[in-house]
Order: sequence, then C-alpha cells, then structure tokens
Amino acid sequence: MLDITLIGTGGTMPRKDRFLASCLLNVNGHSVLIDCGEGTQVSFKICGRKMKPIDMICFTHFHADHITGLPGLLLTMGNEGRTEPVTIVGPVGLTKTVRDICVAAPNLPFTLCFRELTELKPFVSGALTVTPFRAKHSIPCIGYTLELPHRGKFDIAKAQKNNVPMKIWSILQKEDTVCFEGNIFTSDMVLGAPRKSIKLTYCTDSRPTEAIRSAAKNADLLICEGMYSDDSKLPLAKEKGHMLFSEAARLAKSAGVQKLWLTHFSPSLDDPQSGLALAQEIFSDTECGFDGKSITLKFV
Amino acid sequence: MLDITLIGTGGTMPRKDRFLASCLLNVNGHSVLIDCGEGTQVSFKICGRKMKPIDMICFTHFHADHITGLPGLLLTMGNEGRTEPVTIVGPVGLTKTVRDICVAAPNLPFTLCFRELTELKPFVSGALTVTPFRAKHSIPCIGYTLELPHRGKFDIAKAQKNNVPMKIWSILQKEDTVCFEGNIFTSDMVLGAPRKSIKLTYCTDSRPTEAIRSAAKNADLLICEGMYSDDSKLPLAKEKGHMLFSEAARLAKSAGVQKLWLTHFSPSLDDPQSGLALAQEIFSDTECGFDGKSITLKFV
Repeated sequence: MLDITLIGTGGTMPRKDRFLASCLLNVNGHSVLIDCGEGTQVSFKICGRKMKPIDMICFTHFHADHITGLPGLLLTMGNEGRTEPVTIVGPVGLTKTVRDICVAAPNLPFTLCFRELTELKPFVSGALTVTPFRAKHSIPCIGYTLELPHRGKFDIAKAQKNNVPMKIWSILQKEDTVCFEGNIFTSDMVLGAPRKSIKLTYCTDSRPTEAIRSAAKNADLLICEGMYSDDSKLPLAKEKGHMLFSEAARLAKSAGVQKLWLTHFSPSLDDPQSGLALAQEIFSDTECGFDGKSITLKFV
Repeated sequence: MLDITLIGTGGTMPRKDRFLASCLLNVNGHSVLIDCGEGTQVSFKICGRKMKPIDMICFTHFHADHITGLPGLLLTMGNEGRTEPVTIVGPVGLTKTVRDICVAAPNLPFTLCFRELTELKPFVSGALTVTPFRAKHSIPCIGYTLELPHRGKFDIAKAQKNNVPMKIWSILQKEDTVCFEGNIFTSDMVLGAPRKSIKLTYCTDSRPTEAIRSAAKNADLLICEGMYSDDSKLPLAKEKGHMLFSEAARLAKSAGVQKLWLTHFSPSLDDPQSGLALAQEIFSDTECGFDGKSITLKFV
C-alpha cells in the first residue's frame, strides 16, 4: 500500500493558492519526498501531513522552485524531534548545492546522507525500489520511478519440497534470507513468482521523451508536468523545456499507464481544470493535480 | 509619508496562518524589505504588495527563518521585470551567506550590491537614513532604525537675506546644493531648521538591551519581537535570545516611542492577542502585529 500526496502543484513561483510542485510518498510509516521548493513545509501543514518521517528527499533538479524549501523543512523536522539520518538524492552537483543552501541550517540534530546520481541506476530505499531516469530540461534534470514490490504468494508445496522448516515459514514471507540451525533458507524457497508491484513515475521539468515513456511503462500512476494547458504555447514549452497538457497525455497513453496526474502548472494558469478536457480527449484517465490531492495505491 | 507593512509575524518556522517575520517600507515608490524567510514572497501576494520596487533588503541575522526566502523573492522580482540593482544589507558574513543560498538563483536580470556591516554606522538609502544597531541574540544580529527626514520650512526672509535668486527657491526646497549662474547655493540658505523626521525602529531577534532603547528613542513606531506572551517563559527567552511581550513593552515605554507593534511570535503561540493585555498594562500603545498589518506614518 503506497500513499501519494501532492504537497504542491505549481511551477516557477508559488502562488497564494498554489505551492510549488512537490510529492510525498508514505509506505509503512516511512516517507519519501520529491522536491522541496519555497513553502513546501507550509503546504505540509495545510495538507495535514507530517514531515518528521521523511527518510529520503529526491531532487529532480536544482532550480530554485524545487530546492529552496529544504533548509526550513530540515529545521522543522529537527524541531519535531527527528534524529535519524535523512538521505538526499539528486543530480550531479547535489552535495555542494545542498550544503550551500543549507548554510542557513548549520546545526541539524540528524545526519544528512547524500546519494549524488553520477549514474542513473536503480537503488533500494526501505521498501521501495527507486529508478532515476533522465529528463530533458534547460539544466540536468531527473525523473523518478518508485516501485513497491509485491512478493509472490506463499507456496506450501514449494516450502515442503525445499525442506524449509515450518518454524521459519512466516519469517521467509517477509525476509529474503534466514539462517536456521546452521542452514541458509531464502524466500524464493517458499514463495511463488513476484506479483505486480505498485509503480509510480514522477517527472518534472521536462519535454516529452522516449526515456520518460519507457520509465513510466505500465505505471499505476504517472505524475507529470503540464506547464501549459494551451497548445499554442508549444514554442514556449520547447524553449523552456516544459510540456503541454496534451503532450503529457500522449506520453501517458503511449506508456500505457493507469492514470495521469498533471502538476507543475505555470503561475499564469489560474484554473488548470479549464484545460483538462483537451488532455482527456487524448488520454481519458487524466486528472489535474492540486495541493493536497492524494491517492492510496494498493496491490492488486 | 512612510508606508509600513508587516509581511509576516512568525518566528522559527512558518505556520499555515502566519508567515515568517518580515517588514516592508514604501516611500516615494521605492521599497525596503527587512528580512526574507521562507514564504515571504507568498505573503507578499496575499498582502497585495509588490516585490519589484524593492531597492534594498536588510537582514537582521542569518538564521533560516530570516533569509531562506531570498532566492525565490529575487527570482520573482526578476520575473516581474526588475532590472535595477538591489542592495543587500546585513551583518558580517553577508556576501558569502547570500551567495551560498542564492546558488539556486544564479541568473538574475539585475545586479546584487552588498553592504556588509563591518561597522554599525548610519547610511543613506534613497530618501531614508538607516542606522543599524547591535541586538543580543544567539548569533550576531542587527536591528535597524529607518528615518525619513523632514526638511525645514521654506523661509522667504532667509532666502532674501542670503541673496538666493527666486528662480531656484523651489529647487532648493528639494535639492541640497544648486549651482546657478556660477554660484553655489545650498538648501540651508532658504530653509528653516529640519523638522521632526518619521522614525521607525525594527528589532528581532534579541533580548532587551540599552542599545535597542537608545536606537528606538522617541520613535514613531517600534516594531519589536515578542516571542513569548507568558512571563513564565523568561528562562527560555534568556536561553534562546528572545523577548517576552512584557519586556518589549518595558523597552517601548523607556524609549518613549509613540507606538509598539509586537512581532516574531513563537509558533506555539496560537493567539498573540491573548497576551496583549499584560503588555498594555506596561505600555498602553502596544498592538499585536499580524501578517498584512500596515500603517502610514505622516510628517507632523
């Protein structure tokens, strides 16, 4: 079960009715945050979400609207009693950039760990598998696919055939490897084939690309930037490295995702809903994001 | 005429109903901002104030709740079309600190000028005289007195006695020095003694001190931190370098100011008004600040 909340849905600068694009994932009491622009901690409070459980913060890129809320958020997490380390993930340049902007937060009561993505390869964070992928923006930018794996069903016949002692059957349904009475047992000795994972793909700021389509393949939810609702803004979108609603919808359709949420709206876009029908003509399961919009994705 | 607006009135961290302490001054179409924590630009929009005219930003100190909104504010000023330089003022360490936190705002369409206050002496900025003074906090911290001078009345007899040509009488009412037909004339040749200036003193974060009392002497308005309303929090105020409402009120009374506004409230303080009566017992012209509270101070 994966809870997903859009903390903010704005691009470029916060509006008084829309904070900057940011997304919170909760799984088993642990949280992952994607991006943290100015005011993200305020929107957390408005959305009624907790900051203290954030174990990992993934940055898409280092434009101000995605990062300047970090020092305040970290300080507030410290004020709330966080002492466990927090991992910060992002493109090359991460460590210096975060250290620079955190000049204002020098004495945190927890450790910051950095995972600077010199290579875009999958890694595991808690229960999630994170796969960063290249986006196409005016500066180096990364999208993230986050998957919650779903283990295979327990298979009594397989367990018996592999001579797995009954005492550790339940443990092997959660743990990969167990040592019992001097012997090693692995979960694949008692479980069937892995079942369909829950898959979220998140991508701002970018032009549409094959890399995004590939990363979002069959995702349960694609959260994708839709900077402009109006197709006449294509030249601007190309110039600035952003997407139209219609481009995001085509991407979602071609990737075969279950659902598309648009986010990272231009501050000039007063009512994103006004451009939704056009996107839905291309991909019917398109919805506009808004600050606080949330969903719980469950294993099927 | 000096317009003063509290953009935010919170300390430590923003609340969903209270942005971080920040104060805007407007005079003759030019603006000065004191402090810029996370979300200041959002509160500007909620308060209906313009960011583009900000010529100078004065920092009291470099704690996150006073500075992390700077990159976003500067970028928004740039988006709004600002091209004129902006002067940044603050304690020693200013240039490095601002450059570090502005790593997220590398390409501004205007120049940043730095006035790093190695000495606390008055300086002129546009129509205002700015006098920084030492506050007493956990790190180096500065308060600011901003005065709008009021020139003397035009004195015909004095102008005639000094043989000032009538053609330049009106000019000398605005300019200090005029060269006319090869001769130098100064405003003191046509004006009476300077009249009472408009005086604002702003001070967060600090314990009460003689330096603040002296700086605020006879001010029209003292805007002063009141972190805690409850006198039982004195030990905490002393430990953290903050003031109680009652301490700010005693300071205002002893400085002989016209009016006191309390600001920089603890995030734990839900309703600052609840502690106001106690402060008013000490100094009756005390008011609680709130985001958007404003006043226009006029020459008397």
